[in-house]
Order: sequence, then structure tokens, then C-alpha cells
Amino acid sequence: MPAFPEIDAIRFEGPDSRNPLAFRYYDADEVIEGRTMRDHLRFSVVYWHTLRNPLSDPFGVGTAVRPWDDGSESVENAQNRARVAFEFFEKLGAPYYAFHDRDIAPEGATLGESNKNLDAVAKVLKEEQQRSGVKLLWGTANLFGNRRYMHGAATSCNAEVYAYAAAQVKKAMELTLELGGEGYTFWGGREGYQCLWNTDLKRELDHLGRFLHMAVDYAKEIGFTGQFYIEPKPKEPTKHQYDSDAAACLNFLRQYDLMDHFKLNLETNHATLAGHTMQHELEVTGSVGALGSIDANTGDLLLGWDTDQFPTDIYLTTQCMHAILKYGGLKTGGVNFDAKVRRESFEPIDLFYAHVGGMDAFARGLKIAAAIRAEGRLQSIVDQRYASWSDDLGADIEAGKHNFASLEKLMLEKGEAAANTSGRQEMIENLINEYL
Amino acid sequence: MPAFPEIDAIRFEGPDSRNPLAFRYYDADEVIEGRTMRDHLRFSVVYWHTLRNPLSDPFGVGTAVRPWDDGSESVENAQNRARVAFEFFEKLGAPYYAFHDRDIAPEGATLGESNKNLDAVAKVLKEEQQRSGVKLLWGTANLFGNRRYMHGAATSCNAEVYAYAAAQVKKAMELTLELGGEGYTFWGGREGYQCLWNTDLKRELDHLGRFLHMAVDYAKEIGFTGQFYIEPKPKEPTKHQYDSDAAACLNFLRQYDLMDHFKLNLETNHATLAGHTMQHELEVTGSVGALGSIDANTGDLLLGWDTDQFPTDIYLTTQCMHAILKYGGLKTGGVNFDAKVRRESFEPIDLFYAHVGGMDAFARGLKIAAAIRAEGRLQSIVDQRYASWSDDLGADIEAGKHNFASLEKLMLEKGEAAANTSGRQEMIENLINEYL
Amino acid sequence: MPAFPEIDAIRFEGPDSRNPLAFRYYDADEVIEGRTMRDHLRFSVVYWHTLRNPLSDPFGVGTAVRPWDDGSESVENAQNRARVAFEFFEKLGAPYYAFHDRDIAPEGATLGESNKNLDAVAKVLKEEQQRSGVKLLWGTANLFGNRRYMHGAATSCNAEVYAYAAAQVKKAMELTLELGGEGYTFWGGREGYQCLWNTDLKRELDHLGRFLHMAVDYAKEIGFTGQFYIEPKPKEPTKHQYDSDAAACLNFLRQYDLMDHFKLNLETNHATLAGHTMQHELEVTGSVGALGSIDANTGDLLLGWDTDQFPTDIYLTTQCMHAILKYGGLKTGGVNFDAKVRRESFEPIDLFYAHVGGMDAFARGLKIAAAIRAEGRLQSIVDQRYASWSDDLGADIEAGKHNFASLEKLMLEKGEAAANTSGRQEMIENLINEYL
Amino acid sequence: MPAFPEIDAIRFEGPDSRNPLAFRYYDADEVIEGRTMRDHLRFSVVYWHTLRNPLSDPFGVGTAVRPWDDGSESVENAQNRARVAFEFFEKLGAPYYAFHDRDIAPEGATLGESNKNLDAVAKVLKEEQQRSGVKLLWGTANLFGNRRYMHGAATSCNAEVYAYAAAQVKKAMELTLELGGEGYTFWGGREGYQCLWNTDLKRELDHLGRFLHMAVDYAKEIGFTGQFYIEPKPKEPTKHQYDSDAAACLNFLRQYDLMDHFKLNLETNHATLAGHTMQHELEVTGSVGALGSIDANTGDLLLGWDTDQFPTDIYLTTQCMHAILKYGGLKTGGVNFDAKVRRESFEPIDLFYAHVGGMDAFARGLKIAAAIRAEGRLQSIVDQRYASWSDDLGADIEAGKHNFASLEKLMLEKGEAAANTSGRQEMIENLINEYL
Repeated sequence: MPAFPEIDAIRFEGPDSRNPLAFRYYDADEVIEGRTMRDHLRFSVVYWHTLRNPLSDPFGVGTAVRPWDDGSESVENAQNRARVAFEFFEKLGAPYYAFHDRDIAPEGATLGESNKNLDAVAKVLKEEQQRSGVKLLWGTANLFGNRRYMHGAATSCNAEVYAYAAAQVKKAMELTLELGGEGYTFWGGREGYQCLWNTDLKRELDHLGRFLHMAVDYAKEIGFTGQFYIEPKPKEPTKHQYDSDAAACLNFLRQYDLMDHFKLNLETNHATLAGHTMQHELEVTGSVGALGSIDANTGDLLLGWDTDQFPTDIYLTTQCMHAILKYGGLKTGGVNFDAKVRRESFEPIDLFYAHVGGMDAFARGLKIAAAIRAEGRLQSIVDQRYASWSDDLGADIEAGKHNFASLEKLMLEKGEAAANTSGRQEMIENLINEYL
Repeated sequence: MPAFPEIDAIRFEGPDSRNPLAFRYYDADEVIEGRTMRDHLRFSVVYWHTLRNPLSDPFGVGTAVRPWDDGSESVENAQNRARVAFEFFEKLGAPYYAFHDRDIAPEGATLGESNKNLDAVAKVLKEEQQRSGVKLLWGTANLFGNRRYMHGAATSCNAEVYAYAAAQVKKAMELTLELGGEGYTFWGGREGYQCLWNTDLKRELDHLGRFLHMAVDYAKEIGFTGQFYIEPKPKEPTKHQYDSDAAACLNFLRQYDLMDHFKLNLETNHATLAGHTMQHELEVTGSVGALGSIDANTGDLLLGWDTDQFPTDIYLTTQCMHAILKYGGLKTGGVNFDAKVRRESFEPIDLFYAHVGGMDAFARGLKIAAAIRAEGRLQSIVDQRYASWSDDLGADIEAGKHNFASLEKLMLEKGEAAANTSGRQEMIENLINEYL
Repeated sequence: MPAFPEIDAIRFEGPDSRNPLAFRYYDADEVIEGRTMRDHLRFSVVYWHTLRNPLSDPFGVGTAVRPWDDGSESVENAQNRARVAFEFFEKLGAPYYAFHDRDIAPEGATLGESNKNLDAVAKVLKEEQQRSGVKLLWGTANLFGNRRYMHGAATSCNAEVYAYAAAQVKKAMELTLELGGEGYTFWGGREGYQCLWNTDLKRELDHLGRFLHMAVDYAKEIGFTGQFYIEPKPKEPTKHQYDSDAAACLNFLRQYDLMDHFKLNLETNHATLAGHTMQHELEVTGSVGALGSIDANTGDLLLGWDTDQFPTDIYLTTQCMHAILKYGGLKTGGVNFDAKVRRESFEPIDLFYAHVGGMDAFARGLKIAAAIRAEGRLQSIVDQRYASWSDDLGADIEAGKHNFASLEKLMLEKGEAAANTSGRQEMIENLINEYL
Repeated sequence: MPAFPEIDAIRFEGPDSRNPLAFRYYDADEVIEGRTMRDHLRFSVVYWHTLRNPLSDPFGVGTAVRPWDDGSESVENAQNRARVAFEFFEKLGAPYYAFHDRDIAPEGATLGESNKNLDAVAKVLKEEQQRSGVKLLWGTANLFGNRRYMHGAATSCNAEVYAYAAAQVKKAMELTLELGGEGYTFWGGREGYQCLWNTDLKRELDHLGRFLHMAVDYAKEIGFTGQFYIEPKPKEPTKHQYDSDAAACLNFLRQYDLMDHFKLNLETNHATLAGHTMQHELEVTGSVGALGSIDANTGDLLLGWDTDQFPTDIYLTTQCMHAILKYGGLKTGGVNFDAKVRRESFEPIDLFYAHVGGMDAFARGLKIAAAIRAEGRLQSIVDQRYASWSDDLGADIEAGKHNFASLEKLMLEKGEAAANTSGRQEMIENLINEYL
């Protein structure tokens, strides 16, 4: 019996459609800049929110109605849920999904039991992948939910917790390999501190560096060639998380000699909690070749927590896709909907409305970004703006032919620099609006 | 004629004093952890706020009453102001000061004229330094006030502006050397962007990296051995500044191979604008040996701009001095009051109230921090918390003797990690209160 | 000689136009819901930003290039500037403008002299209004720029400052009447506090209440029948402003019995600084019949100060116009561009780009809002959501026929409330996107 | 068997004590301004956090270790928990406690069953109150946790949910009366919206106004003479809560003619989430005679959610107690610790550390505030600041003897207002530090 009997499949119907369960922009086979939209966007559904989030909040219990789920922590329920998951992925037309170990299978009384549960559910996932063609974008281990991780996992003050986390990641990596996952993500939900007075920050970071090197070593050992990602977030649940933003992640990777092994998985809501636009984080990361994947969602800039809303703002999706195209497009990564329906949108059908809206918003952003690039008006403004750096003086400076003395000599002669030209920000903002 | 005839000198009178123009905690010669308070704190007054800030804001004109200043942009006025500055430093008992080039002397019609003005005022500064014994903590160049820098200085899209900035820094470095300055600071007030759509972030950062290397080269050339600092700030005046926080600065320094040449100058108000506590920034920086100096002020956490208030919160000063002591104390750097009196505190005497309060708050923070360290109760809590990392398992992990497989083996045997102990945050917060 | 010789007039060219100096959506004579776009939008240009803002910021001098302005504080320059202003209004096609007293004429050495200057410039404004047909949306007095207002105006601790402010408002009201202004606005830029320790909040609010009553009395006396507005803003320049948001303004008006005399002038950037969406402020105000006018701009939600950017976000303008239509449209008020070009957009032509973009964004928002209303799909979702309040139980409660006992009786019988239905937030967000 | 066998009773040992389980400042019988500290502070422990909070967060399960609690939802467990609660209150020496209906007893399958459960536990509470002398500060109903309240309670779009909420409040009021509660609090956790597009704000507020009138009516009917409170909070769990800050609450009370029946219960963490200091909210409320009670806690100003931390900042507690003394002290209200231990402070003893610290911090704040008042230096600065309002002009304005014309006449004669004096904010901040 299908879990979503009222849905056959979400289809492309074009911009004039008034069907809330159809795509108006996402036409998977449409080719843009030499690649299908499917391949550009590599949409992925997250297991944790879509299949496991009860829609509770700090002030209220879960509201989600999920008739297929018996609410138990049995392996059978988990296996059944896995089949429902794939029904959802297929009907939606999402080519990828992502999970934490504890999303897919119940935690047992011991590590060994937990691993056994994982294997039992992974078997179903594998069958379903083969049956449906839906693939695993990346796997990860939940190192934050269990009370053992209250003080962190790879940065815990408790060495056995660190060991447990290592074991858990090892298993999750094996599972990811087994399921053909194209990447493996580290999000350090508890890797940070609540209070600096009781924290040895340096020692904790050293432990984290060592932990990630162990992961790199183990990948080599088992032949896992997927991409490793780390995911910035500044805070929540902890007061401060070490991977606080793209720059902090890059600094950490450089410090611990991990730049060759990791790329970043950027999330909009994490960017804004850190005080940055998503466009900023994409630029910081893309400009050093470290852009791996994105967690596509949005926050509410007037709220200070991770609302993980579905992205529907066309400005945001245009900015994301423009940056992604600029830096060569997604390779192993995807547009992964790390987003949850509102607590009040508790019916199963809301999961479809939400994903359809997010996919269409990104498809529309992709089309707009491609149009901006194709027309070239924006690029020509930027080129003109930096023209002096392609002229003699600028080119010589870039070529390393100048020093403070030669530049001073020049400017003492001239007395003042050449006049600036307007940055034209308002005109550019109007220009972007032309494409919407 | 003295500018502050009503003040003789600010003296230490002890905690019971009710004199608002005396120190209650700052006893310069008192020895703490083997060093005088003078040497621990290395207080510095900033020329820009104390001598030059008219106390305007975006909605109103300046209110400051400064009877010694004729309001003109003449060199004579600047020289006279320099003498007043030293009267202030001496009466306050501050051993250091700091300046931008454009604070001390008026900008001329050409670069050459500006440099001449600088030389004329520097002569007075040098005389006053020799006369008073007050020293230069660090110098810097103002690369943000003039309209030429509207698009940035070392990151301007205008190559001649870059050249001009280079010439200006060259001169400021020479001046700093001439005046025996113990450091030189880069604060990139316009090094960032207002709008990403018209910005080539990568190219701008490359230019900035090159610029700082030129500075390093020029220091070597002229024999300037003072410490270089960069100063994090996330925004204001620009939407985003590249040196946004300590981690972003460190990432930049690592990327452009400048870690050996720079330390950080951390400011409280910049930390909080970036969403961090000052204690956090001190830890991030101190733990990698990059803590250079601090700009001692405070912001208002409910306001989103750089209020640059004088620091009077004892919790803040305790945190600052505890971190500074932990990381070996200030060497070339100082406690530099990058703070301004409120626009409504427009009388000359308010400058004294403000600095006396700030110095006393830091002296008190130093005494509290030293007491916390001396008693050792806090440290013993922290040591206990990480005890498992000094035991067999933790020590072996730190020594590199473990990998994922060995850790998994261990945890499969144990089934679950050893129990956690409470983080005791509330007890620690109470403990800190005992010292106030 | 025209100030903007390159501009003839901004014309409507339709959505396919690629002309950055044409309207793509604003067709003044197009009729929507029975009213022309001109009458719906009542666009207004602000004198302070467009004619007087030098584009300085707290870290740098003004950058604006305004060739028609000789930079002097002479009355002649002010009169000439007034003629340029009207050239701008006309070429742009804006039917209204707004000013502070000190925008239009220089402040003199005495109040009397300032008033004389005002009269001299007002004469030109009147001529230009008659010549061009451009009208005054509202006038106001600048009670924040001069240093006399450092502690407030109507809430100053200095009673003579209060008296001065009263005199200044009196004159500004006379001038507004003389120029046929349709309203008069109070924005309390300094009416608040920097520090509660030295503030008698109750007394200051009583003074403010009295001040506004004097204004009401004086309007009656001189026959000024325009609408009074107060304008919420939470902070900046002060730490806290008494008129902090719509609710605080309404509370104040109720407390001091001023609800009959005032409506609100809402500004987007002020709303977001207060932690609210503009849509929220419009609802709070519109729902009690107090929506008067809007200051059309936008802030940057990641920056904590009043950036006063031109509004270009179509979601924002749709929300504004939807709320305005819902509450009966603008009457005496207008869409007043309290917005300034970026400091880097310093050329005269940028003033046109900016206003054209803002006008088009609002015109587009109006068309979208009207389409949403015409189609009725959104309204039908809302009606359905509240259906139980039109049924027996809900209608009876609304009619006052129930009390706690009768409701308890009912629910004890039922045991549990009827099931909720989904809030459908995601579906609604997708629906809004259909109209863009 | 006692739940806290290691604790006898928390005793006052004075400032030099190093015992983390003793009071250093809170000496209940010490008399300050003619009243004991016990009576000034009226400390209250909250049932929800101290007895019922599992210390979960959005990313992890509960960590709390509460050996006395069998984890079941049985009435017996609830009764046993009630006895533990009173052991805690007594050992701590707190004279009051506060609860929601659902904290003390499990919710049943029907309203009737829930009410029966409440009665069964209330019997134990009553016995324990009589035995121990601990009293009920206020009661309230939990109208946010159950999924029925997902769209609000008194502002739900579902009329039966409204009826259910009414029934629940009726019972909670009866219970509060039965237990001699001195007040009853409304906190509108779900009274607000997630999305304005689907919300009829006006209708919802009308429903809320009607609801509170029903409560007032029912209180009269049953003879409940305790104080009603409403509690401001701007957001969380909803995007926007109608009772967003003190001003919004007052506006609502005025609009719906409820000012005579309600006072405010102010919470620090709610104040700061609304962008205000607690001192501000206390002033706004106290100055109109509406200050009822406080929820004593603190947030983290760099985090955007309700962290509900125990208050330990002496500046904060000084500000609170200074405002409370200024406005006549607490009457029916109390210093109610709406605060929870950190998730990592999961052991029972942490509950004692936390409350002891909070109580001592408030006792210290009370002593400092009283000393500031006794000395009068601060008051004298404020009096001096407003001196002109007691002189002729100011007094006449306050007496209503002036209008715009008379004030203009005066200022035309004088030409300029009398000079301002410094606000002395820095000096005042230093002065406050003297008392710490």
C-alpha cells in the first residue's frame, strides 16, 4: 500500500500551471549551459527531516502525522520507513538522498547492536536504490543526539566518547561506501563549547584535527573515494561551534593540513546565523576551490535559531546558482534540502508542497543565473570596474613588479590617484530584477 | 597654558576612594605575577578618538568642546594639539599612545604635501615623547576616510588607489620607526565589499595579500622590527570586511603565507559585531600564538554598530586579562583604549572620567584574573574535566597510537562510553562571582 | 542650465525594456482596482537624502558629486538647490516630495534668522510647486542634527531646548500649511535615551505627550488640517527611542490620548531594526486604522544600522502593497523614498537609477498584490482556515455569548477539541511565487 | 528517603565563604530599607524547569538525571515528584514556587481526566504547602505544549481549541485559588503567528481580548483576588508573539480595556530577545504602575533563542533591584527563577548550585541598589540634570501654561537655548562600579 496514494508523480507543467503539485520551472531534461537541469541541481532529500522529524519544538511536542510509521524503535518499522522514503523520492523525482546513521536505524543498547540494526536497514536501502535508481548523495553519523555526546564527540572531554564517535563514523563510512554514497559529511553539532571557562579549546581542536585525519586514513584503507565535507555552523545547539563559518572551516583545514581532503557543505541558514549571506559563503569557498555541496534551505533573518525553512526566495536561489555556475557547477555535491516543513504543516502532503516549491525555486534561480551569464551585461560592468588592473600599473602590480618604493615614487609624481567611478549598486540591483 | 588646568595627575587612592578622578585599582607599581601592573597593562590612549573625534553621529553634528583646538586644518593647530595630547597622556599616567597618519597631521593637496605635514607634526611628537617618556604603541595609516578609498585601499578596484595606499603606508611605517613605535597595525576599514555582484573577491584578496607582503619587505628594508598586527572587524563601514573575525584573519594569513609576520589586534566591539565574545577571540588567537594586542572598548550588544564605549564591565576585563595572562601576557602590544566618550559627554573632563574608568576596570580585571589563577580552583575543575585525556586511552590517542579500527574494537568491547560528568557551568559562574 | 541635461523624462517602456532609465512597470495612468497607479502609490522624493546627503559615513567623508551645489550655506545656494530639486522631481515623474526645515534652508545664528532663511527658500519652493504641479507630501522639523538637541528635543532634560523645539515645529507647521502639505511628521530621532541611569523616562514621556498636544492645538489654531504622523524607530542615533515600533507608538498615543490626531508613518528599515517585518508593522497599524504613510526603503538584515537602501525586493513591495490595499489604500500618505544611494554611487545619475528602481519595484508589487487579491485563492485559504469562527461555536464566542463555564461544559462533554488542519505555509509561499 | 540526601539546608555564611552550597549574600532576615531580604526578593522556584525539564534541546535528547522520577506519566509519579519539589524548595530556603497545570500532573485522554489528575496532585501540593510553609507565587496553564495548540490557544483559528483553552484556564484558576496562589500568569507561547499570509491578526487579537475578559469575569465569580499578569516575549516558539514586549502588552491592555486588571511579569531573556535591556522593560512598566513580577533569568545576547540561564551578572541584578525599589518593591510578585541548568549540568546537585548562585546574585544586587539609593550621589546627578524643569520655564510648561506661540516668543527673544551640560555617562558607569 503506498504511503502517498494521492500522488502519482510530480510533473513539469510550465510557468502557467496552477497545479500546486506540479513543477513550473524544474524540467529535469532541459539543457542549460550544456548540462541538464537534473545534473546541475542534483536535488537531494534529507532523511532526517523528511522521514524522522516529529515537528516538535522547544515548547511543544511533535505534530507530524505519518500514518506509515508505527512510532516504535523497531528495525521493522525502520525498514518499512525506508521503503516509504523511496516512494517519496521517486514520486518527487529527486535523484539523491542523504542520511545520518541514526536516522535510518534505531540505536541499540550497545554499539554492536546499533551496527547490526544499521546493516538490517541498509539492506533495504540498497534494494530500494537499485530498484529506483535514486542514489546516496552523502552519508554521515549523528554525533550530537545521544546524551553521551553532551560535551562533544571528537572534541569531548571524555576520551571514551571520542573513541565511540570514531567507531560510529567508521561504521557510517563503511555504510556510505556500501551504498555507493558520493560523499561523507562532518557536521560538528556538539563540537564547540557552552562555556569557555571550563574548556581547553586548543586541546579540543587538536583532537578534532586528529579525528579527521583518522577518517582520511580509513577512507584510503577501505577504498572510499567519495568527497569529504565539513559543514559550517556558528552555534546551536552549542554556544559556539568550532566550524563556525566558511572562513573558520578553511582556517581549521589549513591549520591541520586537511585542505586536500575536504570541501565545504554550505547551508544558507548556517550562513545567516553566522552573520553572512549565503552568497558570501559561496564566494569565500568557491574562490579557493573548496565549494563542495549545499544544504538548501533558508532561515528567517529576524529569528536567531536554525529554522531550516524550505527555500522559496528567488533572489536567494539566483545567488546560489550564479555562484555555483561561476565556480564550475556541482560535482560530487548536490542541492540537498536540509529543510523541514513548519510544525503547523503536519500533514504528509505538506512534504510534497515543500519540496516542489524548493525545487522550483532552485530551477528558476538556475534559469535566471544562466540568463544573466548568457547576456553578459553584469559581467561587463564588473570587467569595466576592474579595468585598471588589466592596464599597465595594475598588471605590473599583479605581476609582482612593484614594491612600496616604486608605488610611492609614482604617486608622489601624480599627487593623487585617478578618479573613482560609481559602484552602480542600485543600477545592478535593478538589472537583477529584470531577470525575475 | 595647560589644556586641563583642573587636573594635576590622576593618582591611586585605593578602593575606598570616592574621588571620581583617582584610581581605585590601578596602582602602576604594584607587582602581580612578577610584573608591575604598568607592564602587564601597557595602557595606551588613541589619538583619533581622544584628540580628533568631534562626537558627531550619522544624525547630528559634532558636540565636542575642545578649547585648545582652533578647528582649522593648519599644521600649527596640529602641532599644538600634539602638545595637548601629551599633557593628557601624562596627567592620566598612560605609558603609550597610538595614531593614524591623518590623526596627527592634516592631509595636503598632494601626497607630497601630506607627507611634509606629517614630518612637521612628527617633530613635535618626538620632542614630546622624549620630554614625557610616553611611547608609541603602534602607528597606522588611515586608508578609509578620504573619498579616494571609497572602493577600498589595498582591495580597491582602482589600481592607482592601491598605489596611493602603498605610498601612504610606506610613509606611516617610516614615521612609526622614527618615533620608536613598537608595532604597526592594519585595520581594513574599506577592505571588503558593499555588494558581491560587482566584486571580484578573489582578485581583491590576492591584491591584499601582495600588499601585506610589500609591507613585510619594506620593514625589512628599513629595519623596522616592530610587530605587525591585523585587526578583525566584520562590517561597518562596509557590508563585509575581509578581516571579519579572528578565524578569518588567521585563514587569510595562512593562505597568503603571512603567519610568521603578523599577530592580531583584537577589539571587543569588533568581536561582538562578529557574533563572538571577546573571550572567544582571545582564545582562538592566543591558542595559536597570534595574540598581539587589544583594542580595549566595549559595544552594546543590543546595538548593531561600533559604539566604541569605554570598557567598565568587570566580567569583560576579567575575561580579557585571564586570557592574556594564560597566553603569556602582552609583549609588544598593549591595552589600547580604542574608545570614545559618548556624544553627550562632550566636555574635556569627560575624557578623564572615561579613561580613568577604563583603566581601573582593567586593573581590577587583572587583579581578579590573577587571584583566580593563584587560587587554582578553576584550573583544577578544568584539569579534572579532561582527566581522561591524560589516562591511557586519551594519552594514546593524543600520541597517535590509535586509528578508527582500534577505537572501534575498544568500543565494541565496552558497548558504551564511560559516563560523563556534569560541566558545572553554573557552579563555575558562581565561583567567578566570588572574586568580584 | 539643467542639472541633469542627459535626462529628458523617465518614461514607461514596459517589462521588455532594457533601458535602465525607463520604467518597466510603473505606468502612472494604468488603472488598478479603480484607481491609477499614480494615485495608489503617491510616490514622494525626500529632500534630505536626494538633495542634501553628502554620502559620508562614520568612517569617511562625503563622496557625493553634486555640481549644482556650491557647498556653501548661503540662501542663494539653497534657492538654487530647490530649483534643481524640482527638475529632479519632474524628470522622474514623482508627484510629491517631503522635507525637514533644515534641509531646505540654512540654519542661522538665531532662531529668527533661521526662520527668515526658511521663508526665503519657501518662496522658491512655492513657485516651483505651482510651476510643476509637484506637491508637498509632508513637512517636518529637524530636531536631531544640531548640538542643542544632543539630549533630545521634546524630551530634553533642558527646558529651553524643549522651548526651542516647540518654536521650530511651529514654524515648520506654518511652512507646511503655506506650501499645501498634506501631512506633518514627527520622527523622534533624539527622543529617547543613551543611558537609563541618568534618565527620568516618565517625565520625558510626559513632556513629549504635552508637546504633541501643543502641536494639535496649534494646527487647530492656524487651520492646518493635514494628517499628523509619528514614525517608529527603535534606536540610532540613540540607544533607545521612545517611538520604538508600531506597538510602542500606539501605546504612547493611547496613554496620552492622541489616537484621534495621529497616524503612523512606517519605514521598512525601522521595522527590521526593531526586529519586525514591515508586513508586521503594516498589519499592527492597519488593523487599528492607524496606517498613514510609508517610508519606502530597505535595510540589510545582517547589518545593525539604518542603511536606508532603495527598495528593490519584489517580495517586500508585494507585502507592502498587499497590506496597503487591504487597509483601504493610501489617503493623505504616500510611498515616500526615505532612501539614499550608496556612498559608492556618488554620481548624479545614480539618483535616477535608484529612484527608477524603487518606483518600478513598488509598481510591480502593486500589480502582484492586486493580482493576488483579484484571483482570491489566498483569501479563500485564509477564510477556510478560520471557518470555525463563522460556525455556531465561534460565532457565539465572538458575539459574547460564552464564558469560561459554558466553554468548559462544552469541552468536558467533547473531551478534546476538533482536529486542526495544516497551516499550509509552504504551499502559500509557493503560491506567492506564482505571481512574481 | 530524601531526594537530596547530601544537602541539609543552604545557609548564609557571608562573603568570605568558599562553600559553593552556602549563601554569601542572601541573609533572609537582614533588613534593607525597612523590609527583610526575604520580603524584598520573594524568591520563587519554577516547577517546569526544576522538576520537569529533561534538558533536551532541538538536537539532542534529555540528559537530566533525576533518580526520584520513574519517567512515567502516572499520577503516583507526579505526586512523588511533588514531594521532592518541596524538599528542594525547603532545603534551598525559597518561600515560593510557580507552576503550569501540566507540570504538576499528567495530561489525560480527555479534559475530564486531566482535571482529575490535577486534583489528585494538588492534594499533595496543598499538604506540602501546609507542612513546609512554602507558598504558591502564581499558577498558570500550559497552552502551548500539546499539539492542539499548534495554531495558538486564545488566538487559534480553531474555535474548539479556544474553548478547550478556556476550560483549561478555568481549572488552573480554580487550582490557584485552592492553593492560595498570589497571582495568575498568562504567557502566550503560541499566541502569535508563523506566517502573516495565512493570519487574521485583528480577529485573533479580538479573541484574545475577549478571552482575558472572561478570565477577569471568572476571577470575580469565584472570588480569586490574586493579581493577573501577562508576560511579554517577542518570538519563540512562534515567529511573532502578540505580547512581544512591555510596550506591546501595554498597548494591548489599553486597547482592550484591561489595564485595571493586569500587571506585567517581565523576564530578562524575553526582554533581550525583543532587543531591550531588562532595565528598559522595568522602567517602561514601572513608570505606568504596571510592574508586577519578574522572571529572573538571563539570556546570552549573542544567541537568538531563549537560553533561560540562571542570572549571575551583578550588573543585571543591580539594575533589576534598583528599578524594583524605585517603583515601590514587589508586592504580589516575586523574583521567580524561570531558569534551567545547562544541558551539561545534568546532575541533581547542579539544581542547587544554580539556584544558590541566582539567589546570591539577586541578594547582592539588592544590597548594591540599596546602597546607591542610600548614598544619593546618583540621584543627585539626575536631579541636577533635570533642574531646568523645576525652574520657571520648565515648571510652567509642565503646568500647562505654555503653548507653541508663547514658547516661540521666548526663543525668538533668546535666539538660542541655554547651553547643555554633559550627560556624564562614563562617570556614572564608573560610579556604579564603585558599589560592586
